[in-house]
Formats: sequence, structure tokens, C-alpha cells
Amino acid sequence: MIISTLGSHSSLQILHGAKKEGFTTNVITDKNRENFYKRFNFIDEVRSYNSLDDALDLINKNNEESVFIPHGSLIEYLGMDRVKRIKTPIFGNRNLFEWEANQHKKMSLLKMAKIKIPESFESPEDVDRLVIVKLLGAKGGKGYFIAKNKEEVKEGLNKLLEAKLIKSIDEVIIQEYVIGIPMYFHFFYSPIFKRVEITGMDIRYETNVDGLRRLPTNLINVDPTFVVAGNIPVIARESILPKAFEYAENFVNTVKENVPPGMIGPFCLESIVTDSLDIVVFEFSGRIVAGTNLYVEGSPYSWLYWDEPMSVGRRIAREIKIAKLENKLGEVTT
Amino acid sequence: MIISTLGSHSSLQILHGAKKEGFTTNVITDKNRENFYKRFNFIDEVRSYNSLDDALDLINKNNEESVFIPHGSLIEYLGMDRVKRIKTPIFGNRNLFEWEANQHKKMSLLKMAKIKIPESFESPEDVDRLVIVKLLGAKGGKGYFIAKNKEEVKEGLNKLLEAKLIKSIDEVIIQEYVIGIPMYFHFFYSPIFKRVEITGMDIRYETNVDGLRRLPTNLINVDPTFVVAGNIPVIARESILPKAFEYAENFVNTVKENVPPGMIGPFCLESIVTDSLDIVVFEFSGRIVAGTNLYVEGSPYSWLYWDEPMSVGRRIAREIKIAKLENKLGEVTT
Amino acid sequence: MIISTLGSHSSLQILHGAKKEGFTTNVITDKNRENFYKRFNFIDEVRSYNSLDDALDLINKNNEESVFIPHGSLIEYLGMDRVKRIKTPIFGNRNLFEWEANQHKKMSLLKMAKIKIPESFESPEDVDRLVIVKLLGAKGGKGYFIAKNKEEVKEGLNKLLEAKLIKSIDEVIIQEYVIGIPMYFHFFYSPIFKRVEITGMDIRYETNVDGLRRLPTNLINVDPTFVVAGNIPVIARESILPKAFEYAENFVNTVKENVPPGMIGPFCLESIVTDSLDIVVFEFSGRIVAGTNLYVEGSPYSWLYWDEPMSVGRRIAREIKIAKLENKLGEVTT
Repeated sequence: MIISTLGSHSSLQILHGAKKEGFTTNVITDKNRENFYKRFNFIDEVRSYNSLDDALDLINKNNEESVFIPHGSLIEYLGMDRVKRIKTPIFGNRNLFEWEANQHKKMSLLKMAKIKIPESFESPEDVDRLVIVKLLGAKGGKGYFIAKNKEEVKEGLNKLLEAKLIKSIDEVIIQEYVIGIPMYFHFFYSPIFKRVEITGMDIRYETNVDGLRRLPTNLINVDPTFVVAGNIPVIARESILPKAFEYAENFVNTVKENVPPGMIGPFCLESIVTDSLDIVVFEFSGRIVAGTNLYVEGSPYSWLYWDEPMSVGRRIAREIKIAKLENKLGEVTT
Repeated sequence: MIISTLGSHSSLQILHGAKKEGFTTNVITDKNRENFYKRFNFIDEVRSYNSLDDALDLINKNNEESVFIPHGSLIEYLGMDRVKRIKTPIFGNRNLFEWEANQHKKMSLLKMAKIKIPESFESPEDVDRLVIVKLLGAKGGKGYFIAKNKEEVKEGLNKLLEAKLIKSIDEVIIQEYVIGIPMYFHFFYSPIFKRVEITGMDIRYETNVDGLRRLPTNLINVDPTFVVAGNIPVIARESILPKAFEYAENFVNTVKENVPPGMIGPFCLESIVTDSLDIVVFEFSGRIVAGTNLYVEGSPYSWLYWDEPMSVGRRIAREIKIAKLENKLGEVTT
Repeated sequence: MIISTLGSHSSLQILHGAKKEGFTTNVITDKNRENFYKRFNFIDEVRSYNSLDDALDLINKNNEESVFIPHGSLIEYLGMDRVKRIKTPIFGNRNLFEWEANQHKKMSLLKMAKIKIPESFESPEDVDRLVIVKLLGAKGGKGYFIAKNKEEVKEGLNKLLEAKLIKSIDEVIIQEYVIGIPMYFHFFYSPIFKRVEITGMDIRYETNVDGLRRLPTNLINVDPTFVVAGNIPVIARESILPKAFEYAENFVNTVKENVPPGMIGPFCLESIVTDSLDIVVFEFSGRIVAGTNLYVEGSPYSWLYWDEPMSVGRRIAREIKIAKLENKLGEVTT
């Protein structure tokens, strides 16, 4: 049986984990990265494409005995239309893709789950506090900016319009900037075990903002940018975890009700922890996040469940393996 | 034989380690967290309490064949009076609790150990440099503030008094703010092996201060707070380690002389490393610290001693196991 | 067969790895640190010296059946002249030492490898942007400063001259300060397997700059310093890795052509990742870096190659072991 994924994001981890669980592996990659992926022995086959349509064909060449693992770069690279035409079974709930792609639907799902979220502002005119303005389509934080009042929001939006990063202000989301520290909680919902596991936690390492703070303020004459270039490991105070789990379970239940067949596999609650130790979730990811790449050999949390190294990539493969053995492959793929 | 602890702080790590060493485990937890602790298979029994007096009863229900592991939340949750009424053998030196609870006694112990500590100021009037003001009773950095002169100290104290966070200024410690980087050195003293081991190192991840520094300074109109919400892994330059060990051994010797029966098990030297690579210790913990939760599967340092994954939780259980085998349980419990 | 190194920098990791691979180990250390190194069982012999000439003698006491592992503190401690008189076979290419010691030759090697590097300025007069001024001989960032124009450069240089940290301004390198985030990519070139492996990644933890940023800016009246006191783990976005590998291979090829017999073993590309996800390399290390000490039990990257814990220290020992078995010791030592 074959496990396949697109060459980017967390594909090394995914295929490394799949190989550990005994699967045949292949990666579908841009021709430019072919040599890169050929460096790794746990990838049985590197299939390279010259165009995105080719990429789709290569994915669909995997027959029904295959499982394709989506990750954060899939829709970014292929576009939603092509992703919808993937015929190979996908691990996870493909109906969740459009909820995740649309910021408004995304936040509504969190709200339905009774998870604390930052205030959103429909129009720059409504802004009455520190906000962060995010581009709806952007990946990795590109174009994001912080503003402390409506004037700064408008000014920033004008810059984005001039730079043609957006066509209209409908393409941004204006969100209260919650004061606290970022913490990204990685979870895994197992339809087979019917349980939520915490698989890890990370902090994003963003350029240039995480470099600017090393400069004396009188030297800084550049605007901060928020492009994710890496991840740093972190753990949370144990007393925060019960709340994090409560949110994770609420989320799983809400997805079950609103996005059939419900949550399958990895997801992430991107959060700010305030100084009253509240968790405010400003985003979710309905699939594996790149921060899990820290934990190729297991995380401080995975060892609480497993007596063997268990990355999220391997956890996915393990779920598929058990599902297959129990004739429940349909419960973990869509 | 049973290993038990209070459900918070580092209880997952402690009980996970105890199970690895073959002990029966139980956790004593607030009713609200009962479901949380039931998620983990390595906890054999979850005993939940509705009141703190119940908690004490549940701890004492563990008979003499049990060992109770104290951690940083024990006194915070139960209060010193109840902790004194714990009858179950405690791993570690229970006489150290009051030294740790009293900031003045705490710093005096470090001083006796000839460990470099920050200057302390008896009165706001004496302040002649950058200081940090800490609440004596506070856990996790709540209420802490930084001040650059006596006026700012007084102003900050007035705010604390008004907010009723303190009743008198005797409830704070005014400490020189040492310029450098925080590093928390985790050690373990084994009365069985008669040696000090370094078990790891961490940086605290504090809200909101570690989030504020991502904001352009012109946007910051909130005061920094120092509530510990997590921990980040770190290692030290190898050439710093001999000094760290010297301090650790001095500390063990000083505790031996002044707080019989002496140091047992984990402790931490909370330090600032200056740019002349001096280590200045501004606090110690006489028991397991939460930063060790990073190393459930061992730390970059634990592997220098052990050829198997050795968290501090497991190291405690290992010490108890060996002590028991050698009929020396009395040497590691009080 | 013996593996030996100088007691500092990454010697614990190196000797721990050597022991795992079955070698006899010895450390050559300053008398002051003798007790420190005696704490670790994987070191078979601790040889201490009172003078640097003694140190050289102790290194040379290791016969031809030994391999001496150089690291970042070797030249700093012993001085280039003594290092040149080491007769014991050295793992790695000893001809690279002087390229690494000379900032101008160093940068030229990167340039020849078609690696993007920061602009350099011959004279303070030429400075037209934010720069960092580095001391040529300095280790660990001592004396480094940031300046935003030629006036500040001159002012800073005068301070260094007055403090006698330098004798002339020829002892500094004035480098464009690239805005972005630091990332240190650790690689290993295996002459035996003829491949480049990525072994890990780190961020340096520098005092006092990484502490200052926790202070409200109005409180900061001290200049930032950049003395490396530790390291923090990090991983990179997967899509950055192909470029990092391209640079690493270019570097290996360029060393092959210009510094015979070419690259052997660990090296590091010290880089800034900009917000366009460009990698700008501002320095290289032609041997093991201290950041690898994070990964005594393997890194998120080492597990992609090895099904066993593989520190860089152990990787070195493994390379020597295989070279020896295949009668190719001459290919990995000089």
C-alpha cells in the first residue's frame, strides 16, 4: 500500500513516518526539487512535475490502494480547483478544506465550538484597538501588518492595494491583536481510537519580526514582516493543558456536526496565551502543520501516549495501518 | 509500591517516569481536572478532590509503602500548613520547603554557598540601579515589575497595594536586575550515587513579555508581565558548565550543613548569564521545576549519563527504586 | 583506536559519540576543568595541562592510531602556531583552518561558491547602510557592534581602540547588517559516502542582546552585546531546504577546488533568512559548531538518515570507523 504527498511543507516527516509503518512511499514534486527529495532513502519514488496539471495527474496515478496526505502547501500550490479533482483517497476530511480556506467560515467554526477568539472588525472604520491585518489568501504571514487605530489600518491597506498584494479590502481580515504569547497546540483526532491526542506544540519563527527585536529600537527603520521561516519547540505549563484539551474536543465535536464526516487526524489551534493564562485561538489548521517537523522522533507529548518515537507523520501512517487492518479505511479517508 | 503526586506542574512527567520504572501510579487532582488526567494510561488511578482538605486526606491515604513527589505547585495549591501535615513519605527534603518559601532565607542559602547573587535592596529608598520587584508569595511571575529608580519602585508598589496584590511592602523583594540572558540549570543530587548530575536547561516563556517584544515599540502601551506559561529548550556553551557544576556542588554542601538531611533529588539554579559569561543566580528551586517537562524522553545532558531516555520524573523513580533495593529508602525520603 | 579532543566547545558530544562507536576516548583539558571532565563515564582518560605547550604535547602523545577532533575552541585556545604543530592525524581538512581564521579569505570562499553573502565595506567611509562590525580574531561575538551610518562606525571603532580590544581598524570586518532571522545550518560532508547530510539547525542565544529585548525600551541604557552563551533548537520551512543544500554542495565543491583535499566532516553555514526567504550566509565554520550540542541524541534531521541516535560527534566517529574498515583513514584525516 502506498502513501503519497506533495513535496513541500511536512512531506519529509510524512513519508519518513509512512516508511516506519511499512508503507511504500512516493513524493510528487516540482521538477526543481527532484534532486532534493532523491537524497532521502525513505522515499521510494520521486515523481516530478513541470506543471500543476501534471502534479494533479501524478497524484491521481496513485490508485485506490493509495492514500494521499494533504498538508498546508497543497491548496497553496495546486489551487482549490485542482485539489477538488483529486481522486485518490485523501487522509482526513476533504470537506474541511474550504472552511479552512475562507477566513470567515474558519472563525465561525471556532466560534461555534465555544472557543475564545479575537474580536474581528468588518470595516477599518470599526477598529477601536490594536489590530493585525491578515491577507485572506496569503500563506506564511506574507503582507500581514499591525495597526493601532483605524487610520493606520487604512494606510496599511492602501499600501497593500498599491503593491497589488490585494485587489480589494475584502481580501483581508482585521483581527484584534491579542496581547500575550503565541503557542501553537498540535492535536490529532483518531476516529479509530475515538480520542484526541496532543502531539506537540511550537512557536513560529518569523522573518523579519523575530530578527528585528534583536536590534536597538533606534536602529529600526523597517516595518516588521511575519513570514514563517521556521519553528521553535516549546511546552506549556501543565495547568493550561486541560483548557487546551477542552477546546480541542469542542472543536472535534463542532466539526463532526457541521462538516461531515468530521475531524480526522491532525489539526492545530493557533493561539495566544494571555497573562491571565487564557487561551485565545486566532486560527485553526485542519491538517498537519509544519511545526510538527520539530518532532520527527517524537515530542515531549507524544511519549505520553507511545512507547516508540511517534511523529505526526508516523501517527497518520499508524492510523491508516490500523484502519486498514480493521477494514475501516473509509473512516479515515475521504 | 506506589508513586503519587498532585495533579499539576510536572505530574505527567513524574508519573510517566514512575510507570517506566515499574511503579504503580496515582494522581491527586482537583475534580475539574479529573477527565484530563484520565486521558493518560500511565496513571493507574486518578483520585479527585473537591476541597484542599480532601486533597490532604487523599495524599495521606497513600500508606508507608508509597512515596509522594512534591513539585512547584504543591505549596501554592495546598498551603504550607497542609503540606506540613503530609504523613506519606516525601521524596526529597521537606525541611527545605520553608527555606524556599521565604525569599530572604532563600537568598541567604545561595549566599552561604558562595554563589554569585544579585544585590538586594531592603527599602525602595536604597535603590540605585535597575531592579525587578517580585512578590514573595506569588507563583509564576504574577505581579512582578521592573523599575529603573526608587521613584518607579514606589510607584509600582503603590499600584500593587491598590490592586490588593500585596498588603505591605514587606511582601516584596527588590532585586538588582542583572543584564544578561536567563538560563535555568536543572540538577539532580543523588544521595545514593553521591553525585550531582546536570539534567537539562530551559528558558521560561513568559506572557506577555515574550510577546510584547514582537511589537514595534511605538505600538506598545501596555506594561510587560512575567507570567510563566511555558518553557523553551536551550543548552549552554560547554565552557560555562564547570562553573555551573561548582555552584551546584556548593549548594548541595550548604544544604547538607544547614538544612538536614541535605539535598535529595532535583533542584534548579535560576540564573542570568552575563556577557562576561558570569553566572548570577537570582533564585533556586529545591525540587523538580516545570522546565524539565521539555525532556520527557531525555535531555541533551541526560544522555551523557544514561543510555536510556531519562526524564527527571524517571530519574526520581530510578533513585527511589535503587534506594529501595539497597534498603536506603530513608536516605531519599523525609 | 583512540579519539581525542580538547576539553571545551563540543568535547562532551564528540567523546560521547566516539564511545558509542566503540572508540577509546581521551580529553585534553586545562587543569582547572579536570574535575569537570572526570564526571563523565564515556571519557576514558582525562589529561590535564598547565600550559598551552603542555597541551600540544599531550595532543601529540596520541600516536598515529589516534584521531584528534578539532572544534571551534582549538585555535582560540592553542593559537594557530601550535595547531600547525599537531602531529596526530586530525579528522577534517587542516588546510581549511587558515581560511576560516582570516575573515577576508573566509568570505571569498563563500563568494566563490556562489553563495549569497552580505556586502562588505573596506573602510568606515564607504558605509551607506546598517552594518555590524566584527572583530577578526574575536570568538563568540565579543566586541561586536551595530551601527547605522559611517559616523556610528567610527565612534564604535574608537571605543574598541580605546578599550584596546583592537590595535588598528584592520582588525575588524564591516559587514552589511542583513534584516531577517538568524539560522545556522549544520551540514556534514562524508568523503566515504560522497554525500552532504544536513545534521541540524540552531539559533544562537547571545548575552546580553537576547536578554535586553525583554526590557521595556525606555529602561534600556546599555549597549547590546553579542556573546554566545548557548543555543536554541530550530527547524526550517521545508521549502528553504533545497536552497540550503544547493549552497552546501557548492561550498563542498569550492573547498575541493581551492583547499585540497577538500571538505571532510561537519561544517556550518551561518545565515540570515530574509522575508523573501532568501538565505544570506554571513560566515561559515569548517568544523563542528557548538549548536550541534543540542542534538546529543539526534536532531529532527539526523533521523531522516539514521535509524539510531546520531549526534554530529557520533557521526564523526562513525565516519572514522567506516573509513578505517575500508582502509580509507587517509581520506578523512589530514
